[in-house]
Amino acid sequence: MADDVLFEFLHMEMVSHIYKDQASRGEMEKDRATCVSTLEGMGFRVGQGLIERFTKDSPSFKDDLDVMKFICKDFWINVFRKQIDNLRTNHQGTYVLQDNKFALLTQFSNGKQYLEEAPKYLAYSCGLVRGALSNLGMDCVVTAEVSLMPSCESLLSSSSSSFIIYHHTTPNITDTTEMF
Amino acid sequence: MADDVLFEFLHMEMVSHIYKDQASRGEMEKDRATCVSTLEGMGFRVGQGLIERFTKDSPSFKDDLDVMKFICKDFWINVFRKQIDNLRTNHQGTYVLQDNKFALLTQFSNGKQYLEEAPKYLAYSCGLVRGALSNLGMDCVVTAEVSLMPSCESLLSSSSSSFIIYHHTTPNITDTTEMF
Repeated sequence: MADDVLFEFLHMEMVSHIYKDQASRGEMEKDRATCVSTLEGMGFRVGQGLIERFTKDSPSFKDDLDVMKFICKDFWINVFRKQIDNLRTNHQGTYVLQDNKFALLTQFSNGKQYLEEAPKYLAYSCGLVRGALSNLGMDCVVTAEVSLMPSCESLLSSSSSSFIIYHHTTPNITDTTEMF
Repeated sequence: MADDVLFEFLHMEMVSHIYKDQASRGEMEKDRATCVSTLEGMGFRVGQGLIERFTKDSPSFKDDLDVMKFICKDFWINVFRKQIDNLRTNHQGTYVLQDNKFALLTQFSNGKQYLEEAPKYLAYSCGLVRGALSNLGMDCVVTAEVSLMPSCESLLSSSSSSFIIYHHTTPNITDTTEMF
């Protein structure tokens, strides 16, 4: 427990530092993009380091889907203490990983106004995933989005985070099928 | 295991980001002090948050030494997975906490040239301790120093980190006695 909090608190401080830092330079225009890219870059390098440790005793992967399942299960459990709830793919290189209770957003209050703040807390994790995949030989673009789940009962898990991974493909998530 | 690494990697990225950031602004003079103070500030806020969680089921402390023992044992174990190896005090408000295998430095190679880099990896932890103590009603100054332990056999634990805490006192660590 304690260690999760340690990581979560440090992550929050880091996001807040990077955004404050940018704001103080008075370059409001570039702000958003620069902060996201800084956080994503930090995540990328950490993701590369983590995947080396996590895979050192694993057999090699037989295809991209196999890699993606590893990310959804082993990688996610090691990093975020739970596995991805839903993996979809269009079998052309686009993958959608849905986490219905994403660890770095559980401290958020519920409500649309807070959801607008959510993307900056997802940038680092996008980088983590991209870094991990990069070291497994898959150069991808990773984006994330958050949506409210209207039917959900618990306050804490009422938002769903989706990580969308584009691997050698044009963005197209309309035609995906569920893998688990 | 994984989670420790997650925190350690993020911590390293953060230190490197903050130092790079400062360097790119070309203010070499103020560099060192500003970076240390930024990291220390982040640690301070995280320390405040952590101690609230760690102490919510604890009985209240009977004196400062009792607080300090809690920091050395429960707090250190929760954050760094081991307890402080040695606590000394001069009974006038100065405490020296010695950790012979400090978690955030175990990845360092051995040798004097790396020890010079060590202080920037201690600033965040100094803040953690100061924040924790602050929320327990002790406003302190916390500094850290690293020294090589000449007699040590293991490469990994060959440096010793000391956190020196000044509580309503003039700095004086010459006359301290061991508490455990």
